[in-house]
Amino acid sequence: MSAPTVPFTGSPAIGLVCRNCSAKYPIAAQHACWECFGPLEVDYDLDKLAKVTRADIEAGPQNIWRYAPLLPAGVDPATRVSLDPGMTPLIDARNLAAALGMRKLWVKDDSGNPTHSFKDRVVSVALTAASQLGFDRFACASTGNLANSVAAHAARAGVPSIVFIPYDLEPGKVTASAVYGGELIAIEGSYDDVNRLCSELTETDEFETTAFVNVNVRPFYAEGSKTLGYEVAEQLGWRLPEQVVIPMASGELLTKVDKAFTELAEIGLVDDRNVRVFGAQSAGCNPIATALHAGTDVITPVKPTGIAKSLNIGDPAAGPYAIEAVTRTGGWMDFVSDDEIRDGIRLLARTTGVFAETAGGVVVATLRKLLETGKLDPEAETVIYNTGEGLKTLDAVAGAPTHQVRPSLKAVREAGLLG
Amino acid sequence: MSAPTVPFTGSPAIGLVCRNCSAKYPIAAQHACWECFGPLEVDYDLDKLAKVTRADIEAGPQNIWRYAPLLPAGVDPATRVSLDPGMTPLIDARNLAAALGMRKLWVKDDSGNPTHSFKDRVVSVALTAASQLGFDRFACASTGNLANSVAAHAARAGVPSIVFIPYDLEPGKVTASAVYGGELIAIEGSYDDVNRLCSELTETDEFETTAFVNVNVRPFYAEGSKTLGYEVAEQLGWRLPEQVVIPMASGELLTKVDKAFTELAEIGLVDDRNVRVFGAQSAGCNPIATALHAGTDVITPVKPTGIAKSLNIGDPAAGPYAIEAVTRTGGWMDFVSDDEIRDGIRLLARTTGVFAETAGGVVVATLRKLLETGKLDPEAETVIYNTGEGLKTLDAVAGAPTHQVRPSLKAVREAGLLG
Repeated sequence: MSAPTVPFTGSPAIGLVCRNCSAKYPIAAQHACWECFGPLEVDYDLDKLAKVTRADIEAGPQNIWRYAPLLPAGVDPATRVSLDPGMTPLIDARNLAAALGMRKLWVKDDSGNPTHSFKDRVVSVALTAASQLGFDRFACASTGNLANSVAAHAARAGVPSIVFIPYDLEPGKVTASAVYGGELIAIEGSYDDVNRLCSELTETDEFETTAFVNVNVRPFYAEGSKTLGYEVAEQLGWRLPEQVVIPMASGELLTKVDKAFTELAEIGLVDDRNVRVFGAQSAGCNPIATALHAGTDVITPVKPTGIAKSLNIGDPAAGPYAIEAVTRTGGWMDFVSDDEIRDGIRLLARTTGVFAETAGGVVVATLRKLLETGKLDPEAETVIYNTGEGLKTLDAVAGAPTHQVRPSLKAVREAGLLG
Repeated sequence: MSAPTVPFTGSPAIGLVCRNCSAKYPIAAQHACWECFGPLEVDYDLDKLAKVTRADIEAGPQNIWRYAPLLPAGVDPATRVSLDPGMTPLIDARNLAAALGMRKLWVKDDSGNPTHSFKDRVVSVALTAASQLGFDRFACASTGNLANSVAAHAARAGVPSIVFIPYDLEPGKVTASAVYGGELIAIEGSYDDVNRLCSELTETDEFETTAFVNVNVRPFYAEGSKTLGYEVAEQLGWRLPEQVVIPMASGELLTKVDKAFTELAEIGLVDDRNVRVFGAQSAGCNPIATALHAGTDVITPVKPTGIAKSLNIGDPAAGPYAIEAVTRTGGWMDFVSDDEIRDGIRLLARTTGVFAETAGGVVVATLRKLLETGKLDPEAETVIYNTGEGLKTLDAVAGAPTHQVRPSLKAVREAGLLG
C-alpha cells in the first residue's frame, strides 16, 4: 500500500513528530519513532493554523468538523468517515456547584455523541485519516466505548470491522458493539493484553490494510480529543476556563485537551490563560496518579480492578505526558474508590440530570476529593468532563422503584403517597 | 393555585381548543373539554405565527427552543425548564436505502437527546408551561422513556418528581429513572392502568400542585412533538419530505409531526406539499393500525404484549386523529412481529450505525413491510423516525462476541482470523 502523494487535501498537518526526540516523519500510518521508539504526534504548519478565525469555525457544521482546519484530516467533507460527533452540551451545573461549595462549575457532557462516548471524536478523525491512507478494514483494542464507536463508524461507512475487547466487559458494551454486525473478538485477558495483541497483529500480512485506530493510526486518533478542548472554549464564548478535571485511562485525553487550550491561545483564538489541569483515576487503576504522588513520571504498570472499566488501562502510554501537563499548569491528580464512584454518578444525576457511566463518576468523586484536600480552588471557574453514558454501566448503580403498589387510589394511599 | 394574569410572556398561544367540538378555553392546566370531554389542544394567534421567519429560527440555539415562537411556552429563556433537547441528527441512510431498494431515505435519530428519546422534547415544553402555571412537583405515567426524562428534568431543575411506571419495565429504564433520586412508583398493572391511576391522582388534593406532563398539562406536552417535524423540514433545507414513517403509541407523535408540516406551509416557512404520513405499531399492540385496516376510526382497546414496550399503549387516546392524518395524506399503517422488530434493529444498526430501541425496530420493520405491500413509494423521498436508544432495550438484541480467544497470535491464527 502506497501513501497518497499529497495526503489529506487542505490539512494543516505537515508530518509526524516524535514526542521524545523530535525526529520528524512524513504523514503515514506510523505511531512510534524509529530513532527512540517514542510516540509520534501530528506536526502542523503553524502559519496555516494561525490563519484560522473564529468566523471560519462558527460557519462550520454543529459537530467536530467545524474544527477541521485545526485537525489532521477531514477538511474536505467528502473525505470524512464519521458519525459527525461533537458539539455536545456544556451544562451550567448550578446545583452541583452549590452541593460542593463551588462558585462556577460546568459539565461537558459527551454522552450526547452518536455512540454516547467521547470516543466518536477520535474514531472519526482516525478513520478519516485511515481511509485516505488506503486502509480498507477498521479495528481497535477497546475497553468498550471504543469498540461501540469503531463498529458503528464501520457500519455507517460500509467498511468491514474487527474489534478486540477484554472478555469480561459490561454486557451493554458487548451488545452495543455486536449489533453492528462486524467481527467482535473477546480476548481472555486484560485490556493491556488486548492492546499488546493488536500491536502484534498490525505487523502481520493479514492485517496490513487494517487500521487499528488506537495503534497504527494512533497519532491521528489522539488529535480528535483536541475537540473537547476547542468546544469548551467556544461554548464559554471563546475563552478558557481556570480549571478542568479529566478522566485518565491512557492519559492521552488529558494531554490533548491541554494541547487544545495551548493551541487556541497560540493562534490567537482565545486570550492566553493558564488552565490548571487535573486528572482523575479509580483506586482500582491509578498508575498515573500514584506516580505523580510519588514525585516521579516513571509509571509502574498495575493490574486494573474495579468498576470503572473504561478507564482500566494498567500500562498507560501517555502517563508521563499527563504528569507533565498537570505539573506545568499547577494542577493535580487523585483517585477514588468504587463506592465513591457510585456516589459520584448519583450526585451528578441528582444535581444535573446527567446520567454518566462509571468514568463520569470517577471525575465527580475526584472533583470532590480535590476540593476536600484543597488542591482545587472552589472559587475558580471549573469544567469537568463526562466522557460516557450511564446506560452502558447500569450495574454500577442498579436501581429499583421506591414503591410498588396495585393500580388503585387506595393502594397509593396505603403506601403513604397521598400525604 | 391561580393562573398567572398574562401567561407565557411572548407566546403565540392564546388558549386551548377542543379537538372534537372546537370549544375554547383560556390557557390553564386543563386537558379535556367540559362540553364534550374531547381532548384539548393549544390554540395559536395565527397572525403572530405568520410573522416568524426562517432567520428568526436560524438565529436561535441548537435545540428545540429555536422554535419557541411556534411553541406554547418558553419564548423567554429564563422560563425554560429544560435539558435543551433537539436538533438531533438527520442521517442520509444510503446503505439502508440501497438494502431496501429506495431512492432517498433519511433517519431522524432522536436517540441523541439528553435522556436518549424524543420524550425530552415534550417534557421540556410541558414542564416549562407547568412551572409558569404554578406547579411545584413534576410527574408522569410512563412506559419508560418518559420516566427517564421527567426524573432528569426535575433533577436539573431542582424540583421534586414522582414518576409512575408499569412494574414489568426493562431494567435499564428503571435504573435510568431511579438514578435521579425522585420518587419512582411501580404499578402492578399495564401502562393503561398506570395512566388511569394518574388521571385519578390529578383529582386529589395531595396532587393539586403536581404536574403530570401527559395528563393535566397534556396539551402543552403534545405540542413539543411538533419540533420533530420542524427540525426535519429545516434540516432538509426548509422543505418537506414526501413520506414519513412514525411509531405510534398513543398516536399523538404522528398527529403532531403532521401538524408541524401543515403549520410550516401555512405560515410560509416551506412550500406546501402533501406529506404522506405512515404509522408503525407492533403486532403485540396494534389497535390503531387494526382499526384503519378495518376501515373505522373507532379504536378497540387491546391488552399489549411483546418487546416494543415503549409503544405498548392499548387504549391510545390520539388513535382516531392519527387515522385521520394518515387517511387525509394518503399514507397507511402497519404492524410487525417481535422477530421482525429485532431484525429491524439489526438492519438499521448495520447500515447506518444507529442503535435503536425496539420502537426504532418497529419503524424499520414496518417500512420494509410497507414497501413489500406497495403502500409506500420507494422512489419518493422518505424520512423515518427513530425515537429511542438501543442501550435501553439491550435484551431485545443481546449479542455476544463472534470469537473468544487467548491473547496470543497463535490463538488468533487458530481461530481462523489470520486468513
